[in-house]
Amino acid sequence: MTAASEIDIPEVKAEVEVVFALYEAALVGNDVATLEALFQDDPRTLRYGVGENLYGMDEIRAFRRGRAPQGLERRLEKTQITTYGRDLAVANTLFRRESAPRKIGRQSQTWIRFADGWKVVSAHVSVIEEG
Amino acid sequence: MTAASEIDIPEVKAEVEVVFALYEAALVGNDVATLEALFQDDPRTLRYGVGENLYGMDEIRAFRRGRAPQGLERRLEKTQITTYGRDLAVANTLFRRESAPRKIGRQSQTWIRFADGWKVVSAHVSVIEEG
Repeated sequence: MTAASEIDIPEVKAEVEVVFALYEAALVGNDVATLEALFQDDPRTLRYGVGENLYGMDEIRAFRRGRAPQGLERRLEKTQITTYGRDLAVANTLFRRESAPRKIGRQSQTWIRFADGWKVVSAHVSVIEEG
Repeated sequence: MTAASEIDIPEVKAEVEVVFALYEAALVGNDVATLEALFQDDPRTLRYGVGENLYGMDEIRAFRRGRAPQGLERRLEKTQITTYGRDLAVANTLFRRESAPRKIGRQSQTWIRFADGWKVVSAHVSVIEEG
């Protein structure tokens, strides 16, 4: 049985929806401790942000702790969470900020279930002009 | 045993390095058939591109088939492939194009092993100004 044989098992998807929502609330609230706890603490964890390329949890932590906590409010659109098997999920969403009306953000996360819970191992955030 | 218990099993990583290289060659060569074959043919497959947000393989196919096949040459930097268990990999890389000397591209892919081989289920590509 490969991971691909069971897509979107309802209880697995429900779990990921919970951690995804926790992450979103922590992001908007600039709850850095929660944001850090939801990323896997590993040098292989990677995050391409709106303006920075962070390799490893040390770089991710340093960035988050230095970030200005203003203007984080946003509205999500077309959020799509897909689970593969019981231990893997991909979460993608668009987002908009009132402060940037002509722009659309994109956030992609790969989540894995570790012994201590679901963690992001790879994330990519970017903003483009509205088409 | 969760997926997380075995990271970067050498033979699994070697497999993903092969498909990653196949994808890169197909991209630079605008080999659309190979690009399509390496994405999972599913409405849940998703690709955020440099300027477009594509939900589902139908949108991805339509985009690729309409793309101008010029200026695709690029040089990869800081490529990082990490495998989790035997069926999941995350591949991230930076890239540069000679035609855009002050910009840096970022490409993130989530690969899953299906019955017919490794396929991308989620991809995100963006370009930012060099910091």
